[in-house]
Amino acid sequence: MKNTTYRSDCPIASTLDLIGDKWTLLILRDMLFGARKFSDFVASAEGMKRNILSDRLKRLNEHGLIERVPYQDKPPRFDYVLTAKGADLLPVIQAIARWGANHLEHAYDPPADLLKWMPSDHAS
Amino acid sequence: MKNTTYRSDCPIASTLDLIGDKWTLLILRDMLFGARKFSDFVASAEGMKRNILSDRLKRLNEHGLIERVPYQDKPPRFDYVLTAKGADLLPVIQAIARWGANHLEHAYDPPADLLKWMPSDHAS
Repeated sequence: MKNTTYRSDCPIASTLDLIGDKWTLLILRDMLFGARKFSDFVASAEGMKRNILSDRLKRLNEHGLIERVPYQDKPPRFDYVLTAKGADLLPVIQAIARWGANHLEHAYDPPADLLKWMPSDHAS
Repeated sequence: MKNTTYRSDCPIASTLDLIGDKWTLLILRDMLFGARKFSDFVASAEGMKRNILSDRLKRLNEHGLIERVPYQDKPPRFDYVLTAKGADLLPVIQAIARWGANHLEHAYDPPADLLKWMPSDHAS
Protein backbone atom coordinates (compact mmCIF):
# COMPACT_ATOMS: atom_id res chain seq x y z
CA MET A 1 0.00 0.00 0.00
CA LYS A 2 1.36 3.43 -0.84
CA ASN A 3 2.51 5.57 2.03
CA THR A 4 0.29 8.62 1.86
CA THR A 5 0.74 12.01 3.46
CA TYR A 6 -2.62 13.12 4.75
CA ARG A 7 -3.45 16.75 5.48
CA SER A 8 -4.98 15.92 8.86
CA ASP A 9 -6.56 13.08 10.84
CA CYS A 10 -10.04 14.16 9.77
CA PRO A 11 -11.81 11.24 8.06
CA ILE A 12 -13.40 13.64 5.55
CA ALA A 13 -10.18 15.44 4.60
CA SER A 14 -8.29 12.13 4.46
CA THR A 15 -10.84 10.50 2.18
CA LEU A 16 -10.70 13.54 -0.08
CA ASP A 17 -6.91 13.15 -0.17
CA LEU A 18 -7.61 9.89 -2.02
CA ILE A 19 -10.74 10.59 -4.07
CA GLY A 20 -11.19 14.38 -3.98
CA ASP A 21 -10.80 15.24 -7.63
CA LYS A 22 -13.01 15.50 -10.70
CA TRP A 23 -12.15 12.08 -12.13
CA THR A 24 -11.54 9.41 -9.53
CA LEU A 25 -15.17 8.89 -8.54
CA LEU A 26 -16.14 8.75 -12.22
CA ILE A 27 -13.81 5.79 -12.67
CA LEU A 28 -15.49 4.07 -9.72
CA ARG A 29 -18.91 4.99 -11.16
CA ASP A 30 -17.95 3.37 -14.45
CA MET A 31 -16.71 0.23 -12.67
CA LEU A 32 -20.03 -0.08 -10.83
CA PHE A 33 -21.70 -0.07 -14.24
CA GLY A 34 -19.42 -2.76 -15.64
CA ALA A 35 -16.35 -0.99 -17.02
CA ARG A 36 -13.24 -3.15 -16.64
CA LYS A 37 -10.83 -2.24 -19.42
CA PHE A 38 -8.84 0.91 -20.09
CA SER A 39 -10.83 1.45 -23.27
CA ASP A 40 -14.12 1.24 -21.33
CA PHE A 41 -13.15 4.25 -19.24
CA VAL A 42 -11.87 6.21 -22.21
CA ALA A 43 -15.27 5.69 -23.86
CA SER A 44 -17.24 7.51 -21.13
CA ALA A 45 -19.15 10.67 -22.04
CA GLU A 46 -16.84 12.93 -20.03
CA GLY A 47 -13.87 12.25 -22.33
CA MET A 48 -11.18 11.48 -19.80
CA LYS A 49 -7.66 12.01 -21.13
CA ARG A 50 -5.58 8.81 -21.25
CA ASN A 51 -2.76 10.24 -19.12
CA ILE A 52 -5.21 11.34 -16.42
CA LEU A 53 -6.90 7.94 -16.53
CA SER A 54 -3.56 6.13 -16.19
CA ASP A 55 -2.59 8.28 -13.25
CA ARG A 56 -5.90 7.80 -11.42
CA LEU A 57 -5.97 4.02 -12.01
CA LYS A 58 -2.42 3.79 -10.66
CA ARG A 59 -3.37 5.78 -7.55
CA LEU A 60 -6.54 3.77 -6.97
CA ASN A 61 -4.50 0.58 -7.22
CA GLU A 62 -1.80 1.88 -4.87
CA HIS A 63 -4.44 2.76 -2.29
CA GLY A 64 -6.14 -0.62 -2.51
CA LEU A 65 -9.39 0.64 -4.00
CA ILE A 66 -9.03 -1.34 -7.23
CA GLU A 67 -7.04 -4.35 -8.42
CA ARG A 68 -5.37 -5.01 -11.75
CA VAL A 69 -6.08 -8.47 -13.14
CA PRO A 70 -3.93 -9.50 -16.14
CA TYR A 71 -5.92 -10.98 -19.02
CA GLN A 72 -3.26 -10.92 -21.74
CA ASP A 73 0.55 -11.28 -21.73
CA LYS A 74 1.75 -9.84 -25.01
CA PRO A 75 1.27 -6.98 -24.84
CA PRO A 76 0.32 -6.90 -21.16
CA ARG A 77 -3.32 -5.96 -20.64
CA PHE A 78 -5.35 -5.69 -17.47
CA ASP A 79 -8.89 -5.72 -16.22
CA TYR A 80 -9.53 -3.23 -13.44
CA VAL A 81 -11.84 -4.44 -10.70
CA LEU A 82 -13.10 -2.90 -7.47
CA THR A 83 -11.85 -4.21 -4.15
CA ALA A 84 -14.24 -4.36 -1.19
CA LYS A 85 -12.67 -1.13 0.05
CA GLY A 86 -13.35 0.57 -3.28
CA ALA A 87 -16.88 -0.82 -3.57
CA ASP A 88 -17.58 0.58 -0.13
CA LEU A 89 -17.49 4.06 -1.69
CA LEU A 90 -20.88 3.28 -3.23
CA PRO A 91 -22.78 5.31 -0.59
CA VAL A 92 -20.64 8.34 -1.47
CA ILE A 93 -21.46 7.94 -5.15
CA GLN A 94 -25.15 7.42 -4.34
CA ALA A 95 -25.31 10.56 -2.22
CA ILE A 96 -23.60 12.58 -4.96
CA ALA A 97 -25.99 11.18 -7.58
CA ARG A 98 -29.02 12.08 -5.45
CA TRP A 99 -27.81 15.61 -4.90
CA GLY A 100 -27.10 16.12 -8.59
CA ALA A 101 -30.48 14.81 -9.63
CA ASN A 102 -32.22 16.99 -7.03
CA HIS A 103 -30.34 20.23 -7.61
CA LEU A 104 -28.97 20.36 -11.15
CA GLU A 105 -31.62 20.92 -13.79
CA HIS A 106 -29.65 19.61 -16.74
CA ALA A 107 -28.74 16.31 -15.04
CA TYR A 108 -30.72 13.14 -15.67
CA ASP A 109 -32.15 11.04 -12.87
CA PRO A 110 -29.75 8.29 -11.80
CA PRO A 111 -30.88 4.70 -12.47
CA ALA A 112 -33.06 3.54 -9.57
CA ASP A 113 -30.86 0.44 -9.21
CA LEU A 114 -27.83 2.60 -8.44
CA LEU A 115 -29.57 4.15 -5.46
CA LYS A 116 -30.71 0.75 -4.12
CA TRP A 117 -27.43 -1.15 -4.23
CA MET A 118 -25.75 -1.62 -0.90
CA PRO A 119 -22.13 -2.47 -0.21
CA SER A 120 -21.93 -5.90 1.36
CA ASP A 121 -21.08 -4.78 4.88
CA HIS A 122 -24.01 -2.34 4.95
CA ALA A 123 -26.58 -4.87 3.74
CA SER A 124 -28.88 -6.27 6.39
CA MET B 1 -26.34 31.88 -10.84
CA LYS B 2 -23.15 31.28 -12.76
CA ASN B 3 -23.45 29.65 -16.15
CA THR B 4 -21.49 26.44 -15.81
CA THR B 5 -20.15 24.16 -18.50
CA TYR B 6 -20.75 20.60 -17.38
CA ARG B 7 -18.82 17.65 -18.78
CA SER B 8 -21.96 15.59 -19.29
CA ASP B 9 -25.58 15.24 -18.12
CA CYS B 10 -24.56 12.63 -15.53
CA PRO B 11 -25.67 13.77 -12.07
CA ILE B 12 -22.47 12.38 -10.55
CA ALA B 13 -20.09 14.04 -13.01
CA SER B 14 -22.05 17.30 -12.84
CA THR B 15 -21.96 17.41 -9.05
CA LEU B 16 -18.22 16.75 -9.16
CA ASP B 17 -17.91 19.68 -11.58
CA LEU B 18 -19.01 21.83 -8.63
CA ILE B 19 -17.52 20.11 -5.57
CA GLY B 20 -14.98 17.62 -6.96
CA ASP B 21 -11.78 18.97 -5.47
CA LYS B 22 -9.79 18.58 -2.27
CA TRP B 23 -11.05 21.76 -0.60
CA THR B 24 -14.67 22.57 -1.37
CA LEU B 25 -16.23 19.88 0.81
CA LEU B 26 -13.90 20.85 3.67
CA ILE B 27 -15.34 24.37 3.58
CA LEU B 28 -18.84 22.89 3.78
CA ARG B 29 -17.68 20.59 6.60
CA ASP B 30 -16.38 23.60 8.53
CA MET B 31 -19.66 25.47 7.97
CA LEU B 32 -21.62 22.51 9.36
CA PHE B 33 -19.47 22.80 12.47
CA GLY B 34 -20.08 26.52 12.85
CA ALA B 35 -17.43 28.28 10.74
CA ARG B 36 -18.77 31.54 9.29
CA LYS B 37 -15.85 33.90 8.81
CA PHE B 38 -12.91 33.81 6.45
CA SER B 39 -10.58 33.48 9.44
CA ASP B 40 -12.54 30.44 10.71
CA PHE B 41 -11.75 28.52 7.53
CA VAL B 42 -8.11 29.60 7.51
CA ALA B 43 -7.81 28.21 11.05
CA SER B 44 -8.71 24.62 10.06
CA ALA B 45 -6.13 21.89 10.57
CA GLU B 46 -5.61 21.36 6.84
CA GLY B 47 -4.07 24.81 6.36
CA MET B 48 -6.01 26.06 3.37
CA LYS B 49 -4.21 28.81 1.46
CA ARG B 50 -6.07 32.13 1.45
CA ASN B 51 -6.15 32.40 -2.34
CA ILE B 52 -7.62 28.89 -2.67
CA LEU B 53 -10.17 29.66 0.04
CA SER B 54 -11.20 32.90 -1.71
CA ASP B 55 -11.62 31.10 -5.00
CA ARG B 56 -13.69 28.26 -3.53
CA LEU B 57 -15.94 30.61 -1.52
CA LYS B 58 -16.54 32.63 -4.69
CA ARG B 59 -17.45 29.51 -6.65
CA LEU B 60 -19.72 28.16 -3.90
CA ASN B 61 -21.50 31.52 -3.82
CA GLU B 62 -21.84 31.66 -7.61
CA HIS B 63 -23.39 28.21 -7.62
CA GLY B 64 -25.86 29.03 -4.86
CA LEU B 65 -24.39 26.66 -2.27
CA ILE B 66 -23.48 29.43 0.18
CA GLU B 67 -24.48 33.05 0.75
CA ARG B 68 -22.39 36.03 1.80
CA VAL B 69 -23.96 38.08 4.57
CA PRO B 70 -22.30 41.46 5.24
CA TYR B 71 -21.61 42.14 8.91
CA GLN B 72 -19.30 45.16 8.60
CA ASP B 73 -19.04 48.01 6.06
CA LYS B 74 -15.57 49.50 6.51
CA PRO B 75 -13.74 47.46 5.54
CA PRO B 76 -16.40 45.18 4.04
CA ARG B 77 -16.60 41.84 5.86
CA PHE B 78 -18.89 38.88 5.35
CA ASP B 79 -20.28 35.88 7.11
CA TYR B 80 -20.55 32.82 4.89
CA VAL B 81 -23.63 30.69 5.47
CA LEU B 82 -24.97 27.55 3.82
CA THR B 83 -28.03 27.74 1.61
CA ALA B 84 -30.54 24.88 1.64
CA LYS B 85 -28.91 23.62 -1.57
CA GLY B 86 -25.50 23.61 0.11
CA ALA B 87 -26.77 22.05 3.32
CA ASP B 88 -28.28 19.28 1.23
CA LEU B 89 -24.72 18.05 0.57
CA LEU B 90 -24.68 16.77 4.15
CA PRO B 91 -25.36 13.14 3.11
CA VAL B 92 -22.32 13.30 0.80
CA ILE B 93 -20.15 14.54 3.65
CA GLN B 94 -21.59 11.91 6.00
CA ALA B 95 -20.88 9.09 3.53
CA ILE B 96 -17.32 10.34 3.04
CA ALA B 97 -16.81 10.56 6.82
CA ARG B 98 -18.09 7.00 7.32
CA TRP B 99 -15.82 5.63 4.64
CA GLY B 100 -12.79 7.42 6.04
CA ALA B 101 -13.47 6.21 9.56
CA ASN B 102 -13.99 2.64 8.34
CA HIS B 103 -11.04 2.38 5.98
CA LEU B 104 -8.28 4.79 7.01
CA GLU B 105 -6.44 3.73 10.13
CA HIS B 106 -5.03 7.14 11.01
CA ALA B 107 -8.40 8.92 10.82
CA TYR B 108 -10.46 9.59 13.92
CA ASP B 109 -14.10 8.57 14.19
CA PRO B 110 -16.44 11.35 13.09
CA PRO B 111 -18.65 12.90 15.81
CA ALA B 112 -21.79 10.78 16.18
CA ASP B 113 -23.90 13.92 15.76
CA LEU B 114 -22.50 14.49 12.28
CA LEU B 115 -23.74 11.12 11.10
CA LYS B 116 -27.20 11.66 12.59
CA TRP B 117 -28.00 15.12 11.20
CA MET B 118 -30.42 15.14 8.32
CA PRO B 119 -30.97 17.88 5.77
CA SER B 120 -34.46 19.33 6.25
CA ASP B 121 -36.04 17.78 3.17
CA HIS B 122 -34.80 14.29 4.09
CA ALA B 123 -36.09 14.42 7.66
CA SER B 124 -39.22 12.44 8.34
